Amino acid sequence: MIRAAELIQRKRDGHELAAEEITELMLAYGRDEVPDYQLAAFCMAVYFRGLSSAETFALTDAFVRGGETINLSEALGRRVVDKHSTGGVGDKTSIAVGPLVAACGVPFGKMSGRGLGHTGGTLDKLEAIPGFRVELTTDEFVAQVRDVGLAIVGQTADLVPADKKLYALRDVTATVDNVSLIAASIMSKKIAAGANAIVLDVKVGDGAFMKTLEDAQVLGEAMLALGRRAGREVVCLLTDMNQPLGRAVGNALELREALATLRGEGPPDFAGLAFDAAVHLLVLSDLGVDAAEARRLVDRVVADGSAVEAYERWIRAQGGDPDEAALPTADVVREVPAPRGGYVAELKALPVGLAALHLGAGRRTKEDAIDPSVGVVCRKKRGDAVDEGESLAEVHARDDASADQAADELLAAYTIADEPPRRRPIVLDTLAA
Amino acid sequence: MIRAAELIQRKRDGHELAAEEITELMLAYGRDEVPDYQLAAFCMAVYFRGLSSAETFALTDAFVRGGETINLSEALGRRVVDKHSTGGVGDKTSIAVGPLVAACGVPFGKMSGRGLGHTGGTLDKLEAIPGFRVELTTDEFVAQVRDVGLAIVGQTADLVPADKKLYALRDVTATVDNVSLIAASIMSKKIAAGANAIVLDVKVGDGAFMKTLEDAQVLGEAMLALGRRAGREVVCLLTDMNQPLGRAVGNALELREALATLRGEGPPDFAGLAFDAAVHLLVLSDLGVDAAEARRLVDRVVADGSAVEAYERWIRAQGGDPDEAALPTADVVREVPAPRGGYVAELKALPVGLAALHLGAGRRTKEDAIDPSVGVVCRKKRGDAVDEGESLAEVHARDDASADQAADELLAAYTIADEPPRRRPIVLDTLAA
Repeated sequence: MIRAAELIQRKRDGHELAAEEITELMLAYGRDEVPDYQLAAFCMAVYFRGLSSAETFALTDAFVRGGETINLSEALGRRVVDKHSTGGVGDKTSIAVGPLVAACGVPFGKMSGRGLGHTGGTLDKLEAIPGFRVELTTDEFVAQVRDVGLAIVGQTADLVPADKKLYALRDVTATVDNVSLIAASIMSKKIAAGANAIVLDVKVGDGAFMKTLEDAQVLGEAMLALGRRAGREVVCLLTDMNQPLGRAVGNALELREALATLRGEGPPDFAGLAFDAAVHLLVLSDLGVDAAEARRLVDRVVADGSAVEAYERWIRAQGGDPDEAALPTADVVREVPAPRGGYVAELKALPVGLAALHLGAGRRTKEDAIDPSVGVVCRKKRGDAVDEGESLAEVHARDDASADQAADELLAAYTIADEPPRRRPIVLDTLAA
Repeated sequence: MIRAAELIQRKRDGHELAAEEITELMLAYGRDEVPDYQLAAFCMAVYFRGLSSAETFALTDAFVRGGETINLSEALGRRVVDKHSTGGVGDKTSIAVGPLVAACGVPFGKMSGRGLGHTGGTLDKLEAIPGFRVELTTDEFVAQVRDVGLAIVGQTADLVPADKKLYALRDVTATVDNVSLIAASIMSKKIAAGANAIVLDVKVGDGAFMKTLEDAQVLGEAMLALGRRAGREVVCLLTDMNQPLGRAVGNALELREALATLRGEGPPDFAGLAFDAAVHLLVLSDLGVDAAEARRLVDRVVADGSAVEAYERWIRAQGGDPDEAALPTADVVREVPAPRGGYVAELKALPVGLAALHLGAGRRTKEDAIDPSVGVVCRKKRGDAVDEGESLAEVHARDDASADQAADELLAAYTIADEPPRRRPIVLDTLAA
């Protein structure tokens, strides 16, 4: 029998626990042998005292060992890649990156959670496609990665169940904000889901969980270390979330933007990030290409239409209609005119995300229903010139009242100045093992 | 609906909560509307961030308001006194103090909890008396204080139920050791139980919860402040627990020592403390006496036998047999001879307490049964001269094997030196509002 109270006390007093102690605690918690209240106190002690890298790995490992693990590379006889983002406003990167790497011949298999956020998570965005099924069994998932080269599905209940249980607890006990706990939660899912190589995208800025580059670096390094210890190849991109990613924020709107990007018509920041992530994954894959060759491959699958074809094959494999015209559209589309001319000095991510949330694009509680048609398209972004009265953004709404409110919120998110702001790259830093 | 997660987060981040927020949180917890896991995280955040005095009072007040409150002074038409100790090895003070003040004509009413400790709490000690009932209803308690002038009973389930619930939670989540939480827990019970004037005895030393005088002072000041805010008169004694209090450790043995003290034959340290506490209570009572008069009164009730008579009336009122001969005795009594001559330089309290616990005098878990007959009598205490082979202590045991073990443990608790140690008073400091 594990003496949970003693482990809590030692963590509270700043001691490092043995790996076996962390493992035993988490396995017992997963089996409901240690109650939520002891884990809540433990997580708060961790919030104040932190976890060493050995403790963090033990936690990650316990999450993985407590549930199903998928060995994609054994099933396929080759290396499989995956991608994860910490989430931000307008982040539809996986929906573009998956088809890009699949079109280059590299299998991509991703299990995704559902987000509580301004817009839905990747799964919610994909569900804007009529007929699309996100709930595949593990066997269906593996078979689709093998046969179609690409699958993005909901995380099965058997994958890292203790992480799922602990995350729900942390969410209601103010113990989410700890780098070690975040890193273990993310990496356990990635490790259990079976990909050999993973590109992580840690968002930094007002619309992201990590507000500063330093915090994002600490999280990125922690995740790299966990991946390395678990025998995975990992690259971590730290990317800007001080404005929305791309132009579209809202589920069907973001899918259209991802599709445009696969045709080579995406907004420069989003396309740049999606192509970069794809290049990293190709370099980590079993293609045996360097970054320059990988870049040429990605450019080619965009130019010759095979990226769009890979998208269509994938969507059809999961039961969806890949035709862009099948995506839902909002009843009301409202322009937001610029109150003055100049340059967009700032376009804050968080208020844009909140405007989309208020339109119905996201969920505040687990029970909220998402409206896939609504959202925002930011026609002007940071650094863009704008004339007085020109459209800054487009609101897609269910009705006039919500459109009015969103237009006001968007206007407040923009700052227009006489001079253009300093340029800021989308990828702020790249960490690799 | 209370947003507990938000309150936890604000406490975690070092902010002071509004009194109403603490009140609302604790009342909701008492009504089972906030789950244990949120309070566990909250208490751990409090462990690291502390509570302001306003927050601590709000917590105390919420504990009191969440349950029954007894207005002893209204029921009696006069002031009632009470006493509380934070607990230590050989602490039978209340059993002597109650009869001392009652014999002087001051009503004494105490509700006590059961301890998990080396020996039982006050209730367990009293239950060594054949027939003694600790479970009185509130009405019986009030009537006995009025009619007999003295009652010491178990805390009713309706008194500070949220404190009871929270204490059980803190006990298994490593969140006991926080001065504000301890002070609120103790003072809420004292305030709800209705006495107007309270003497607190905070033990300091290896056998106590507070290891240093500084820590004890902080706790004492916190409790004084809470009493003052609740309109009670409080004096706090900080007393030595670097050796057992008195000579006897074990339930029936301690009762005999308390009785001897009421006859004026108690060990000097214990008698000194009991008389001091009684004097403070008389001064705080409605007798209108100063300390010198109170001291004369206490000396008189000891000398003329009325203290013993008050004890006997009290024990009979609660169904017990006050005859000392009725107390249980152990089968095996073993002397512990001194391995050398000299002076007792040290007699550690904790190992003496553990020896008594191992003999069966205390309980390790709530389910353990206590043997009232067993324990230890320390014939020699700090500063006493001893000859080689002379008895240091007496073990009262169920059998030879446990007597042997206890004798070894006791021997290890003693340090004998050539020179006598520096004298140390029993009362180290006295705090008053």
